[in-house]
Amino acid sequence: MTELTPQANNLDQWLDAYAARAETLTVSEVRALFSVVSRPEVVSLAGGMPYVAALPKDLLSDAYESMMRTRGDLAIQYAGGQGDLKLRDQIRDLMALEGIHSSVEDIVITTGSQHGLDMIAGLFLDEGDVVLAEGPSYVGAIGIFRHYEAHIEHVYTDNNGMSPEALEESIDRMKKQGKKIKFLYLVPNFANPSGVTLSADRRPKILEICKREHILILEDNPYGLLYFDKPVPDALRATDEDGVIYLGSFSKILAPGFRVGYVLAPPAIRDKLVLAQESALLCPSSFTQFMISEYLAHADWQKQIDTFRGVYRERKDAALSAVREYLPNVETTTPDGGFYLWLTLPEGIDSKAMLPLAVKELVAYTPGTAFFGDGTGQRNLRICYSYPTPENIKIGIKRLSNVINLQTELLETFAK
Amino acid sequence: MTELTPQANNLDQWLDAYAARAETLTVSEVRALFSVVSRPEVVSLAGGMPYVAALPKDLLSDAYESMMRTRGDLAIQYAGGQGDLKLRDQIRDLMALEGIHSSVEDIVITTGSQHGLDMIAGLFLDEGDVVLAEGPSYVGAIGIFRHYEAHIEHVYTDNNGMSPEALEESIDRMKKQGKKIKFLYLVPNFANPSGVTLSADRRPKILEICKREHILILEDNPYGLLYFDKPVPDALRATDEDGVIYLGSFSKILAPGFRVGYVLAPPAIRDKLVLAQESALLCPSSFTQFMISEYLAHADWQKQIDTFRGVYRERKDAALSAVREYLPNVETTTPDGGFYLWLTLPEGIDSKAMLPLAVKELVAYTPGTAFFGDGTGQRNLRICYSYPTPENIKIGIKRLSNVINLQTELLETFAK
Repeated sequence: MTELTPQANNLDQWLDAYAARAETLTVSEVRALFSVVSRPEVVSLAGGMPYVAALPKDLLSDAYESMMRTRGDLAIQYAGGQGDLKLRDQIRDLMALEGIHSSVEDIVITTGSQHGLDMIAGLFLDEGDVVLAEGPSYVGAIGIFRHYEAHIEHVYTDNNGMSPEALEESIDRMKKQGKKIKFLYLVPNFANPSGVTLSADRRPKILEICKREHILILEDNPYGLLYFDKPVPDALRATDEDGVIYLGSFSKILAPGFRVGYVLAPPAIRDKLVLAQESALLCPSSFTQFMISEYLAHADWQKQIDTFRGVYRERKDAALSAVREYLPNVETTTPDGGFYLWLTLPEGIDSKAMLPLAVKELVAYTPGTAFFGDGTGQRNLRICYSYPTPENIKIGIKRLSNVINLQTELLETFAK
Repeated sequence: MTELTPQANNLDQWLDAYAARAETLTVSEVRALFSVVSRPEVVSLAGGMPYVAALPKDLLSDAYESMMRTRGDLAIQYAGGQGDLKLRDQIRDLMALEGIHSSVEDIVITTGSQHGLDMIAGLFLDEGDVVLAEGPSYVGAIGIFRHYEAHIEHVYTDNNGMSPEALEESIDRMKKQGKKIKFLYLVPNFANPSGVTLSADRRPKILEICKREHILILEDNPYGLLYFDKPVPDALRATDEDGVIYLGSFSKILAPGFRVGYVLAPPAIRDKLVLAQESALLCPSSFTQFMISEYLAHADWQKQIDTFRGVYRERKDAALSAVREYLPNVETTTPDGGFYLWLTLPEGIDSKAMLPLAVKELVAYTPGTAFFGDGTGQRNLRICYSYPTPENIKIGIKRLSNVINLQTELLETFAK
């Protein structure tokens, strides 16, 4: 054995065989944090995990027993590519809470809404196409759009969500550059990562612009029912059934481990989605679909969502008050629901460069650059308050303040 | 409302927005049969469904209880993109039954092996690339390769599986045409749809040819453990860990409704697969992974596979004897395991054209053309004997003989 052998084993002899799209797969900034999260001494404000411990497990056991009693063989068999009809009917009721009228025919069950997004991107995106998105936008969506070799154009977004005026400007700029805009991707409620909600008065404006410009809207709404005090404005899909593809999920209002989400789409797109799903998966899991269907049929799921709302409201309050107490020079959004705060650090501090120091202080977060396709967001970071206890959130943000203060001192020293 | 309105609603206003790859999504011949299958008066020899009624449900309830008792919160939470470590370790033992030595590091859990295949195709296939495959080959794989705009080149296959000589000829032909061969796709054991097994003496020849020509092998093996009498030859992956990507599944040895499969790949490819999975799904379902892990840990799963073997052996015998009794002019393969017979009809009969007549006679099958990418297979059809009872298999094949006899008579009349 020569010295080279261990290294030679790691060489990829298939390097010349990959498709062009394989080059788009890079390790994300969020992914690198997973190993950190698992160390118990670290307070992780990074990963966007729901607090599933707040779900009484007997509700699941009841669902399991009912499923196996009534349709046990079907639960473990192949099924249709569109998803279970009964669950699709229950999803209609769920979407009606946000003003959406729909037909079971137009709903496709997916393996988490992430896979819905992946399939939609696959249906629409050719290399070089443009996707308009909030700035910042969901890291998982950015990853998918990149994988399909699209260009992500961020539209200016403030505390009331995406700016309609900025949207018009972005569309004009893209058109002038001769680029083909395929859709507008939006998380209108308690957005990941910003926590902001698209205001009621902006919604018809965004719809009108997109209708006029013939731009399809992808409305991704995993958090809408997790408001703290008052319900969110009606979904965009509620007033436009031809121009909006709506994505929903059970990951945040129930649990992500089932990997069940759904897409509501205009009929022609829905047909293509079912075919794409049959190609990629044959069918989504009946076992997890039926679990959720039985849960919705027998458990008081609205009360359970209320329980989650209470948990997250308390944690949001803990996070906000800690930011105000320990980080007076840091700006933060003030969400009305969901999982996230979006912080803006004092000028000159780079959140990505600071992360290893934070981890050394036993606190983790997600750097802002993860949420932009263009490298901006250096001064930002995302705090996810959904998983740690209020006490740990406070400890974590105090630790974060130590790191930020040290950075600020260093900056001042160098500036002298 | 004008008369045009209902039709206008069905128009697709996004027709100009789809990606090129969306055009590859067409309704498959197998899919169109699903509506037929559900009618109880039809004997369906079409869909490849395992007989999950032979799985005692208390084995699943034990698994559920153990899972919720030991790691209930983890079962419903997000997790890593590679899949559960404990389940990966159990999969090592499963693969060892077919001679494969592996590391947990190189195993990726997938949402059914179909999604593994979809991700691998996405990693390697650019438009116009060539995939070599058996003739006939698995319809779901053909659909995926088509979706990634690849050319499928079928290699002559007989009762001992793919011919090594024909493989060399196909490679030469493709090279002369200046085409880029990305991989060889194989179902070596009790292949879908042919039922044939790649003989032990051909395996090293195929491996040698692919190694020499630097062609990656995809070994798709969902049926290997479902032999009737004697175990299959060692997997191709058993003797080549750098040149083979191996796909396995729990769909046939346990149940498909969990949608859990796995991929064993060389390290560099495995890393890309994990990234592709994180992009497409975030992570596979912990809930279904843990169910299977607990089942493997506590149930006598080898005995259960024995039970399945007995069920399928009896049904294969029923199918073969019915074919011999009622269809003396029809050739059939004689599988040593798995789910399928592949029939060759008398010259002049088109199995696809005959299908509506068969359905009228209350029997369904899959036309041979579904299993070729090039339109051949008109004289062939696939019979799946895994799901109906032996009595119904016999009834179904008798009905099929009525249709075939009628076709033969018609042909003879026209020939006069």
